[in-house]
Amino acid sequence: MTERRTYSYLGPAGTFTEAALDQVAEARGQDWRPVHNVGEALADVLEGRSHAAMIAIENSIEGGVSTTQDALATLPGLRIIGEYLVRVNFVLVAPHGTKLEDVSVIAAHPVAYAQCHGWLGEHLPNHAHVPAASNVASAIGVLDGSSPAQAAIAPPNIVQHYDVDVLASEIGDNTSAVTRFVLVTRTTMPPDPTGADKTSLIVELPHDHPGALLDMLEQFSTRGINLSLIESRPIGDALGRYRFVIDADGHVADERMADALLGIRRFSPRVVFLGSYPRADRRIVQYPDRYADDVFVEARDWLRALISGEPEA
Amino acid sequence: MTERRTYSYLGPAGTFTEAALDQVAEARGQDWRPVHNVGEALADVLEGRSHAAMIAIENSIEGGVSTTQDALATLPGLRIIGEYLVRVNFVLVAPHGTKLEDVSVIAAHPVAYAQCHGWLGEHLPNHAHVPAASNVASAIGVLDGSSPAQAAIAPPNIVQHYDVDVLASEIGDNTSAVTRFVLVTRTTMPPDPTGADKTSLIVELPHDHPGALLDMLEQFSTRGINLSLIESRPIGDALGRYRFVIDADGHVADERMADALLGIRRFSPRVVFLGSYPRADRRIVQYPDRYADDVFVEARDWLRALISGEPEA
Amino acid sequence: MTERRTYSYLGPAGTFTEAALDQVAEARGQDWRPVHNVGEALADVLEGRSHAAMIAIENSIEGGVSTTQDALATLPGLRIIGEYLVRVNFVLVAPHGTKLEDVSVIAAHPVAYAQCHGWLGEHLPNHAHVPAASNVASAIGVLDGSSPAQAAIAPPNIVQHYDVDVLASEIGDNTSAVTRFVLVTRTTMPPDPTGADKTSLIVELPHDHPGALLDMLEQFSTRGINLSLIESRPIGDALGRYRFVIDADGHVADERMADALLGIRRFSPRVVFLGSYPRADRRIVQYPDRYADDVFVEARDWLRALISGEPEA
Amino acid sequence: MTERRTYSYLGPAGTFTEAALDQVAEARGQDWRPVHNVGEALADVLEGRSHAAMIAIENSIEGGVSTTQDALATLPGLRIIGEYLVRVNFVLVAPHGTKLEDVSVIAAHPVAYAQCHGWLGEHLPNHAHVPAASNVASAIGVLDGSSPAQAAIAPPNIVQHYDVDVLASEIGDNTSAVTRFVLVTRTTMPPDPTGADKTSLIVELPHDHPGALLDMLEQFSTRGINLSLIESRPIGDALGRYRFVIDADGHVADERMADALLGIRRFSPRVVFLGSYPRADRRIVQYPDRYADDVFVEARDWLRALISGEPEA
Repeated sequence: MTERRTYSYLGPAGTFTEAALDQVAEARGQDWRPVHNVGEALADVLEGRSHAAMIAIENSIEGGVSTTQDALATLPGLRIIGEYLVRVNFVLVAPHGTKLEDVSVIAAHPVAYAQCHGWLGEHLPNHAHVPAASNVASAIGVLDGSSPAQAAIAPPNIVQHYDVDVLASEIGDNTSAVTRFVLVTRTTMPPDPTGADKTSLIVELPHDHPGALLDMLEQFSTRGINLSLIESRPIGDALGRYRFVIDADGHVADERMADALLGIRRFSPRVVFLGSYPRADRRIVQYPDRYADDVFVEARDWLRALISGEPEA
Repeated sequence: MTERRTYSYLGPAGTFTEAALDQVAEARGQDWRPVHNVGEALADVLEGRSHAAMIAIENSIEGGVSTTQDALATLPGLRIIGEYLVRVNFVLVAPHGTKLEDVSVIAAHPVAYAQCHGWLGEHLPNHAHVPAASNVASAIGVLDGSSPAQAAIAPPNIVQHYDVDVLASEIGDNTSAVTRFVLVTRTTMPPDPTGADKTSLIVELPHDHPGALLDMLEQFSTRGINLSLIESRPIGDALGRYRFVIDADGHVADERMADALLGIRRFSPRVVFLGSYPRADRRIVQYPDRYADDVFVEARDWLRALISGEPEA
Repeated sequence: MTERRTYSYLGPAGTFTEAALDQVAEARGQDWRPVHNVGEALADVLEGRSHAAMIAIENSIEGGVSTTQDALATLPGLRIIGEYLVRVNFVLVAPHGTKLEDVSVIAAHPVAYAQCHGWLGEHLPNHAHVPAASNVASAIGVLDGSSPAQAAIAPPNIVQHYDVDVLASEIGDNTSAVTRFVLVTRTTMPPDPTGADKTSLIVELPHDHPGALLDMLEQFSTRGINLSLIESRPIGDALGRYRFVIDADGHVADERMADALLGIRRFSPRVVFLGSYPRADRRIVQYPDRYADDVFVEARDWLRALISGEPEA
Repeated sequence: MTERRTYSYLGPAGTFTEAALDQVAEARGQDWRPVHNVGEALADVLEGRSHAAMIAIENSIEGGVSTTQDALATLPGLRIIGEYLVRVNFVLVAPHGTKLEDVSVIAAHPVAYAQCHGWLGEHLPNHAHVPAASNVASAIGVLDGSSPAQAAIAPPNIVQHYDVDVLASEIGDNTSAVTRFVLVTRTTMPPDPTGADKTSLIVELPHDHPGALLDMLEQFSTRGINLSLIESRPIGDALGRYRFVIDADGHVADERMADALLGIRRFSPRVVFLGSYPRADRRIVQYPDRYADDVFVEARDWLRALISGEPEA
């Protein structure tokens, strides 16, 4: 009999985060623990209440989720072990019997509200907006009467959890919008490389060193490593001081990535390794032959021989 | 008799944006037009309702203001002509007679609420939070009874506009927090260089070109130009496609900056010049002698002479 | 009746330099003036005795001709207007009636001698070597008895000028050896671009600037310009101080080359422009589209418009 | 009783190469073997006739000695173990009783002859030149009558070996001219690092890779390593194909140098490690703190810990 595991996620049931957790095979049949925000989810992990937490890290429209990025940058002891993509679209829901023409006030999380700007302008040009704390809280408020709104913007799978009518579907302005989630545990060994991996880092730059960003990027480019994400976040102590959130193609078990990490570590006053893990899209990482593992191994053998004074092969 | 000018800003009276506009000498005694968001402010400018708009562009804690960055990236015809810094701190206000121990529900804009996390945890550990649409709307809701909250988080100069009691001051976690604002007009000639200028750009990278970010940064570094801001923003059409928001030290009238802009333009599929304007901190830009204007002029003279076949001096 | 022109070349008749001059259509039927060395040839040009001088600048086996490189680096007022390739091979010649087995002493210019090392070792293992001042002086000495040698190493076309027997042909070790010559005049306008041009420069590096060589190379690489030659030569004042002899693909009339030259000039304490001229191999220069002339022109138009405050197109 | 060792050098006695060998403490009292050229000297070492060979590698006026560079590039099994500097100047010598006004023909090695151009033009403007095979052969020819010359250009210490009169001293044009020599053995362990070391390499560039030279230089610059020598030499198979002769500050036992060598090896189709050895000038190598050995060690420890899943310190 194996121990049950707990997974924290931004709840309640019905959120996009729950849809991400739904993709984790090992999480099926385990305990799912809804929390109110990223901070709670990560605290659950760090304090042992949960085995892992699913958190949103980037949205294709809105960009990086700053609270997640800042939490990962400052809380030691965490590691990303998986990545999941959820297509983001919205429905307009209301209590049974509501008609679209009845709707004058709409409850919506501000981010969701912004992403439905076009549809709302066309179909409900005279509505008012009441901000809600989450994409599901909006619907709950409408249902229990705690919100003055007649309808709520919510994720499509809200209908599996709440008894609502869908007044309109696919109301998001961008039909290809996607949110990227990561599954986070306490520090552990990285999962085995699959050939389709990414490595996440947070890197601070030496501040007395102009051109430092260029130097950092060269650590990757001179090893044939592509970056799929680079975002700056303020360190917070002064304007103009940034840390960089980076996703690099490849796994720390790849020689070229290990070598790049050594270069970054030597140069950065502070670097956080967030993990190497399989990419959500399972796309195999391509790189020039000259950065293959055996090239690194051969070079080390060569160096060892020349230091020991052996004649060249 | 000169014509009166209108300035749009995120209202109502009492916001940090109003405090920024208060720093603009030319705006004194003119018409100030409060609006609800950045989009409205920029539309006022583009459609001729206002001469200029004051908008927040970066916060030392939260980072770049994405809605502002995305609006400047996508709306043609705008130009930044000035930069202003406002120290950001908060007060807890309530209707006359309210005591701190009466407060169980707090109205606050989510960003302001997040920045007061420490003080609230210490002094009001059991409070509930009601999100408000702005830093002033929070106080208005408490005053007019439309919010269930007993107190509101607001900017310090709220007291000049509303009849409230201050229950606590300087309740922000970070006492050195600063927000950076810019004054935006329709496209116009850049103000004259002052020696203490910055140039703002938004640059998209060619997507079929690995190492493109490195190439872009080199356009600046090879001309001795320091970047005080570099932020990535998703272009929004797919994960992994970014544009970069850049503040570079110097003015487009500086030879080295003009040369860098030419390099950027040749390389980028899309570059938006947002303006060259005096820095808020009035700090003179330093650069190596080899990038001085006369070095550029001398090189052009040399090239002209050698093409014309003149003997060397 | 046009004026006759004089061309200086390393003589006497029969040298490889004469074979190079033979390729110059405009020189046919003009006065050819044999000289003893590169210094004399360039002095003829500078002092007006000759219209142009043909001089060897690089050999595929020996590398750059240092005396030529150093002369071009230090003598102001010269310009390269054309490039010519001569295949370099050698014959062993002797007075009529000499047999190979009679040969025990060989006259040869030291460079030619070194290039026939293999053949001599195989066919005349016990010979002695008498150094000669040029590839033709070797044969003259053997013919007029001023040299103790019985045979001489000489260029193949020696037989058109001197009455000698050829004891062996193609005795050079490397059958694809080539020498590159340039035709040099006083400073003049560069010949028109042909699409298959090269530009020759001599560049000194700032000595208080580590990484200066990297910076110089980037001036070319960031404009898509390939270098077909880069050689270092000591400046001569101290060990470790070098100037670089550079051949870059393209013409100073190309926008990307003009821009690179401006960059080099701004950075180098001393740069000598030796000329833009058609390549001997007439190979059209390839470069990425993003460095085409119209890209540069468009960028300048864009910059001009934004400085003048014109709305974007 | 220890075994006697043999040292080969460009003879005969009296050459600058002998003066270099004279600086080698371990060579005193051993067997010194004069040879005719660099090829012979290196063959002595490779075939076991000599323990080591002293060979000239660079002259501050003439630049790299191409035959030495090409021999080191192509002969496997050699290693440089020491570096020596000899100040290069010349005397004009003649048999006893000769007066300067008697001199009309001068015997001289062509390189020496070129370096005395100024003095000869001033003091013997009408002389003729007879080339000699070495700086000492010139004097021998004059003494034994095998040369038609009345005087010879030779190194100053010729007087210790031959019975000649010195007609003039310090006749070289450049009074600070220096030649750099290296002591070469069969492949062996590098001597221990002294803090004032250099590392010599010969590197070929991948020919299908534009910007390869830039990439190679970055391997050094991104580890804070300065290059005191970089010379190109034709590979010899075609115009435009070069190998680079490099002297880098530091020892292969330095972490930053070992790391740079690994980078070079991974990238270059052929790299020859010629050795790490003490600099002739004993100048301590300076480098930024961030490239110190312990920074490399610390980064490796960090990487090892994060791969093993250990919590961060």
